[in-house]
Amino acid sequence: MKQFLEESKKISREIATLSGATKNKVLNEMADALIEHCDFIVSCNQKDMSAGRLAPLDDALLDRLLLTGDRVKDMADAIKEIATLKEPVGRNLDGWVTENGLNIQKVSIPIGVIGIIYESRPNVTSDTAALCFKSGNVCVLKGGKEAEHSNKAIANVLRSVLAKNKLPEQAIALLPDSTRDGVANLIKQDKYVDLIVPRGGEALIKYVSENSSVPVVKHDKGLCHVYIDKDANHEKAIQIAINAKVQRPGVCNAMETLLVHKEVAAYILPPLHEAYQRYGTELKGCDQSKKFIDIQCATQEDYDTEYLANILSIKVVENVEDAIHHISKFGSGHSEAIISENYSIVNRFLNEVDAACVYANASTRFTDGAAFGLGAEVGISTNKLHSRGPMGINDLTTFKYKIYGQGQIR
Amino acid sequence: MKQFLEESKKISREIATLSGATKNKVLNEMADALIEHCDFIVSCNQKDMSAGRLAPLDDALLDRLLLTGDRVKDMADAIKEIATLKEPVGRNLDGWVTENGLNIQKVSIPIGVIGIIYESRPNVTSDTAALCFKSGNVCVLKGGKEAEHSNKAIANVLRSVLAKNKLPEQAIALLPDSTRDGVANLIKQDKYVDLIVPRGGEALIKYVSENSSVPVVKHDKGLCHVYIDKDANHEKAIQIAINAKVQRPGVCNAMETLLVHKEVAAYILPPLHEAYQRYGTELKGCDQSKKFIDIQCATQEDYDTEYLANILSIKVVENVEDAIHHISKFGSGHSEAIISENYSIVNRFLNEVDAACVYANASTRFTDGAAFGLGAEVGISTNKLHSRGPMGINDLTTFKYKIYGQGQIR
Repeated sequence: MKQFLEESKKISREIATLSGATKNKVLNEMADALIEHCDFIVSCNQKDMSAGRLAPLDDALLDRLLLTGDRVKDMADAIKEIATLKEPVGRNLDGWVTENGLNIQKVSIPIGVIGIIYESRPNVTSDTAALCFKSGNVCVLKGGKEAEHSNKAIANVLRSVLAKNKLPEQAIALLPDSTRDGVANLIKQDKYVDLIVPRGGEALIKYVSENSSVPVVKHDKGLCHVYIDKDANHEKAIQIAINAKVQRPGVCNAMETLLVHKEVAAYILPPLHEAYQRYGTELKGCDQSKKFIDIQCATQEDYDTEYLANILSIKVVENVEDAIHHISKFGSGHSEAIISENYSIVNRFLNEVDAACVYANASTRFTDGAAFGLGAEVGISTNKLHSRGPMGINDLTTFKYKIYGQGQIR
Repeated sequence: MKQFLEESKKISREIATLSGATKNKVLNEMADALIEHCDFIVSCNQKDMSAGRLAPLDDALLDRLLLTGDRVKDMADAIKEIATLKEPVGRNLDGWVTENGLNIQKVSIPIGVIGIIYESRPNVTSDTAALCFKSGNVCVLKGGKEAEHSNKAIANVLRSVLAKNKLPEQAIALLPDSTRDGVANLIKQDKYVDLIVPRGGEALIKYVSENSSVPVVKHDKGLCHVYIDKDANHEKAIQIAINAKVQRPGVCNAMETLLVHKEVAAYILPPLHEAYQRYGTELKGCDQSKKFIDIQCATQEDYDTEYLANILSIKVVENVEDAIHHISKFGSGHSEAIISENYSIVNRFLNEVDAACVYANASTRFTDGAAFGLGAEVGISTNKLHSRGPMGINDLTTFKYKIYGQGQIR
């Protein structure tokens, strides 16, 4: 493993300095190669599917695992789109001249070697490999055991394009030891690995965060709130509260708890209740909310739970301060929204709530790379540092200072 | 400890939203209070000095520990200067409108609760407390045991100003348990602490990096190189090579190894040797360099050593590629310089060398906050992510996205 990663680190110097033209040419060829080898990829995927049915994995997991001709084409299209993104390396982030004439330029550079740990969906293999390559990074991918054959097939197709272009194949690599020990080893190699991105269940993320000596950008849970203020526009409030919960309940930017100002609870909860019933949403509420609608009782534990399902906790709050307090206690710092037409209250909420994304009068569901207009995303970071919220390709770069002197000494 | 840090986290919400006017008023009062209580601070420092002499600490350490009236005035002046820095919170870092009309603003915000672990010099206590306060952060300071009374006195003076202004005193706090166990506990409290900044010896930094579940911005060693190219201007080369080593050999941005192109070694090494002799610099060199000057032999271990002393390793290299290779093998990613008048070679060096600061024709000694024009610095980060190189006040902020909608749903 050490020797393998030492090689990755060495290669990273070459990959970091590739021109945009070279990278985009290679990416387009990778997309073409995926299409060309579609049958091979699908047949390898069938092995994973058979094993998955035997395991047996549940239907949702099997669907995430499945590759078809269409899905392989989607993967190829995603790579072509990544090729069109603006060059992320060498952006001038800042610059100034010091009193003694040093010209200081802060420029974006690749991070180096990035380890990505993820589960099930094999398209993550091609997406992240392409994003890392476009941003001049070497990637070490650790996919799920259940997608082993699919991931190998995809990686091999992409690597063959690197080889054809006389580039080091190991720029896109699967972790050689894909066991737990392999992961444990990987996250301790801070001499060779510059960043670890864990995407997956809470247990994995907790384990990696607590044990990694390499910096980690987490993609952790989203316990998101929508607060309907006293001065909310009722129509917007109802539309957003419905959308944030039911449009796709299983994702991290879906709402888990609805907070309603006490003065509007009587007007807003009954029509909301009716609407949620149409979508089959299971509601749980505090004692006050139960005065207006007939729903189950919500416990402290409910307010602390990311359901990732069509279930919603409701709480009636005193005012915006009370709402902010609830969010600071239970929120996961992902996405939080206020619905209000009151200028000062909106500003207070946006300023005081500590989360990656704070929304005024919009659904929390917009927290993702595509909706933000960033293009393909590595994931949604719940880190507070380096990257926060939708992690686009620019978040796969760091920076250095180039200092141009004329013989200055101190 | 947990209860203490829970309170720090709670307070951090209040400190984060203070106006610039309030913060600057409080900072100026803190500076005045240090002057006012100068005798008290100096007398507390005398206790540390007496204990230090008994220990006994060496003269250099005792000098770092010593506080005098003048040094307390310097601390006050530093705080006044921090008050004049541009407000770091609420800067608009980026912003755009999406196709569906969401107005996305990326704005700088305080990090939250920052733990800073440092040694000896008591002025670090007031500098970092002031930098954290100005940037809207709560700090938890862990100074060296040897400066215990001094740090307590300084913190108490600063805290009394917070109290006078009806602000929570715990915004500036010393770690309650200042033992090793206290540090071990602190770096595991990722629920309450957002960043750990260790400044000190290699052992401390290694320990914190390997064991912290809180993100760490390291202030690690600087093994810096100067490469004199074939096309170097000889006068600049000699001045910079001397300056980078002898102007202050004990600091992290001083040069430890000089690389010289083989075609100019015969011309440049003899006059350099003579100049270094005037400064009492101890030279060690490779076999090739010893052909031109009579010096000790340098081992692989020498090239891997941060001397922090008036000692220099010399190596004759084949070309710029060889120099870059040596730096990638032995450099610590801190500060690296090339002396050359050749446009393409300079660009190649600046692009390919992976370090926080890469210099063309200037001394590595400029890597610090003041020389960069950033004002007071927290230190010099050897992290590759979040903060890199001189860590000014803006590096004590992170960001969030504020998204202004008009009822958008997905």
